[in-house]
Amino acid sequence: MKENGLSRKIYLELDPPSEEDQASCQRRILRALEDQGIRAKLSLTVLKALYPLCDRADWKVTVSLAYDGERWIAAAIEEGDTSAEHYGLAVDLGSTSVVMQLIDCNTGRIVAQESVYNRQIAFGEDILTRIFYSKDDAGHLEEIRQATVDTFTELMKKLQQVTGVDTEKCISMVVAGNTTMIHFLIGLDAFCVFSSPYAVRADEPGFYTGKELGIPVPGFVFCYPGKANYLGGDIISGMVATGIHKKEEISLFFDVGTNGELVVGNQCFLLCGAGAAGPALEGGVVKTGMRAAAGAVESVKLTDGEFELGVIGDTAPAGICGSGIVDLLSELFIHGWVDLRGRLQPEASGKIEWRGKEEEYAVCYAPGLWFFQSDINEFLRTKAAAYTMMEYIMSEAGMGLGDVSDFYMAGAFGTHVRKESAVNIGMYPDVELSRIHSAGNSSLDGARMLLLDRGILMELDHILELMSYVQFGAVEDFVQKMVAASALPHTDMERYPSVAARLRDGQKEKAGERGKRTWRI
Amino acid sequence: MKENGLSRKIYLELDPPSEEDQASCQRRILRALEDQGIRAKLSLTVLKALYPLCDRADWKVTVSLAYDGERWIAAAIEEGDTSAEHYGLAVDLGSTSVVMQLIDCNTGRIVAQESVYNRQIAFGEDILTRIFYSKDDAGHLEEIRQATVDTFTELMKKLQQVTGVDTEKCISMVVAGNTTMIHFLIGLDAFCVFSSPYAVRADEPGFYTGKELGIPVPGFVFCYPGKANYLGGDIISGMVATGIHKKEEISLFFDVGTNGELVVGNQCFLLCGAGAAGPALEGGVVKTGMRAAAGAVESVKLTDGEFELGVIGDTAPAGICGSGIVDLLSELFIHGWVDLRGRLQPEASGKIEWRGKEEEYAVCYAPGLWFFQSDINEFLRTKAAAYTMMEYIMSEAGMGLGDVSDFYMAGAFGTHVRKESAVNIGMYPDVELSRIHSAGNSSLDGARMLLLDRGILMELDHILELMSYVQFGAVEDFVQKMVAASALPHTDMERYPSVAARLRDGQKEKAGERGKRTWRI
Repeated sequence: MKENGLSRKIYLELDPPSEEDQASCQRRILRALEDQGIRAKLSLTVLKALYPLCDRADWKVTVSLAYDGERWIAAAIEEGDTSAEHYGLAVDLGSTSVVMQLIDCNTGRIVAQESVYNRQIAFGEDILTRIFYSKDDAGHLEEIRQATVDTFTELMKKLQQVTGVDTEKCISMVVAGNTTMIHFLIGLDAFCVFSSPYAVRADEPGFYTGKELGIPVPGFVFCYPGKANYLGGDIISGMVATGIHKKEEISLFFDVGTNGELVVGNQCFLLCGAGAAGPALEGGVVKTGMRAAAGAVESVKLTDGEFELGVIGDTAPAGICGSGIVDLLSELFIHGWVDLRGRLQPEASGKIEWRGKEEEYAVCYAPGLWFFQSDINEFLRTKAAAYTMMEYIMSEAGMGLGDVSDFYMAGAFGTHVRKESAVNIGMYPDVELSRIHSAGNSSLDGARMLLLDRGILMELDHILELMSYVQFGAVEDFVQKMVAASALPHTDMERYPSVAARLRDGQKEKAGERGKRTWRI
Repeated sequence: MKENGLSRKIYLELDPPSEEDQASCQRRILRALEDQGIRAKLSLTVLKALYPLCDRADWKVTVSLAYDGERWIAAAIEEGDTSAEHYGLAVDLGSTSVVMQLIDCNTGRIVAQESVYNRQIAFGEDILTRIFYSKDDAGHLEEIRQATVDTFTELMKKLQQVTGVDTEKCISMVVAGNTTMIHFLIGLDAFCVFSSPYAVRADEPGFYTGKELGIPVPGFVFCYPGKANYLGGDIISGMVATGIHKKEEISLFFDVGTNGELVVGNQCFLLCGAGAAGPALEGGVVKTGMRAAAGAVESVKLTDGEFELGVIGDTAPAGICGSGIVDLLSELFIHGWVDLRGRLQPEASGKIEWRGKEEEYAVCYAPGLWFFQSDINEFLRTKAAAYTMMEYIMSEAGMGLGDVSDFYMAGAFGTHVRKESAVNIGMYPDVELSRIHSAGNSSLDGARMLLLDRGILMELDHILELMSYVQFGAVEDFVQKMVAASALPHTDMERYPSVAARLRDGQKEKAGERGKRTWRI
């Protein structure tokens, strides 16, 4: 573990200089490293620190080595044996949230994790606003770059507060983010990401020194390479985290967020696509929608005509987040409160009312909180898009969803959503639930894995080569397929046998023939 | 030539991005370079410059590649084909003067050369004063580092003024300097150079970016490695310039300046030593001494009891520089105005007077300019030291001066001194003059050669390995040998047969038996 990562800490007991051995301090260190089979170069910072540090340390020092993709650079030097304190940072650079992990590089342990809003938000809630803000304006672009860096340093400070570890001694950092985020981190105009012909400036930045990027780590910051404009380093990192590029069986990887990115394949091919999954998944469009923060309804159960809610943070419900919406829709559907086309059925419950102002039906899922017909419609478009993307990419691969042995659902949404609910509403395909995996924050996981195993660098080119990219925008029958997938769970019920069964149970319940509920999470 | 150096300029006609080929701008450039067999990495500066430069240039660009010792870094990018403008800088970083050459790296031509005083002089005329000024004082050390960098930028500006070439587009720079100078350039405390056990901080700095060092070149600054405290990169550079490490015959390299550094050897061994040759060689100690600038007497001939002077700059003589002193002493000696022990003979000429104030004899070599007995004594010590160093290092090598087939006399003094005069006074050994070569500024030459041929990097380790260092300070009979060498030309006249012959001619002249002068330069 401790020898395979992007950084190493080596304790050296050097011979002090003498009349017999007048070798320079620099050579003493290089020689001692060579004795351990390590060829390195000393950074300017280390050269400048040699005196009086070595004398003071009685020539017992620890050097921090940082890998730059091809060789070791001694990036820092400390007195005495500090090899036990060997840390690094892994970052998921999202457009909304940035998550950073402090990693003990000797053991691989996640010492702490912190998440903050991306400070770029000051220049636009959504990516496009930020892109237009910075387009052809070097000053604005620099503001956004600096905001990104400031987000990183804020996280480093938070991690330091929580752990007591001096995070500026973390030798190296691995960042996974989408193409726009990496452009902004480096300070590149990102208009190219969203404009034809979609050839970006740089998608393989690799290693730059912390100093060059303005990030206070002594070693290097590695940014995961991307494959295409909408298929960035966060997805490549997800490949590494899930390892689908090394398996014989077919896997499907789906990072569900504001945008959806998916990859299907195995060790022989990786077919990729990306599309707007819709902000509904993050609670964006829904009127009482909110992010998964305190007060958000994150789970919903309908029992005897009443809602049982799971609320984040042990507080009164203030809104509903993505996983709550999926649960809610699933329950409404299974219990007959909405029909196959997603229309609210006012006769099913007194909680469904005609809300005059909006001139539409709505269901009261919590005191004062209403879920409207238009919210449902919006969400159905989202889930249809998600399903259709999966279906489409499988047909592009000459296969069906049934050929997939493992589904990896990544992203915050993929992590928290109840699998069965997602199947019920036809967002996920109707397969054995054990084949659907929450991949969690696979972008962050892949970043951490690479930090701890530089051998993964060798895999990256292979992954990028395996990948081929399908532009969904260019697909003709996409809309048609999406319409079919807008039903609950799908116009083709044969695709959802388990849902059909549950539906029958739900209908029985509704008819007052109270049977035992057949499922529970 | 243009492909072998530390930098390359490559003109690329890239395909513009299209729906069919959406590769990133970065990959387009890397791909085009790979087509030419070049694996490179783009610097952050280049990444940031890609847009809108590539579009504006219609995807016809020239990249400047800088070698970092192991790989190519694209350090700059320009619109259109600028491959004909390919420049680099070679520097001799001396403690008194800094000389810089602007090199056309396509042809190897020296476009221009400029020399200025080292701005470190503000912190002390001599190196030791500067070292004490900066010892254990980071602020002072930084002042000296900045002064060094300022000297470089001053030279770059001068070269730009003279040539019209934008010197900040010079891709790479090679610097050769002694160990203290390189310490100061990098910002390292240099007290170690002069204090026991003489183990320096760093003697193999290698490649650092211009940015890291504060030097405005887009690529790298390479500093020649040194062998030991008194045997710096300027001498290794001199080895490269003279090539003595590749010859079968024995050569002796002598860089004569305030300090004398010498190397004797061939392809199998290089024995090195260094010692204080004395500032007399640069006109320092002599009362009317001056540097080789306008007004300096640089050559002296004695004809019919009168001095014929060569003066720098077509002006009235204002003092005498090193080569002038050697000539003067040689003429005084050959014509019997000083005896074997270097004592002025007042009866030889009316120009020799007892100068009351100093209570010593002195010779008037130009109107109002006197050369004193004490000046002679000082200079004799200097020349004795120089000769003794050569003699001693040969005996250490188990040989005599007669075994040397070529003498390379480097440094400003070595360049300008009349060889025969130096032989006459016993500073150089009495060998065929064709075997004594002026190596000129071999430090600068080696810097330029490496700039144009990165293959030389491979030779450096070999040179350093061949070298073994003799500390003259530790030699017991050094003083004894020096006393013997303080005579004119030497107490052992058998070592100087040609001088003995010339002496006889000179004596004849003195005796009034005017013969034809047997030599003329």
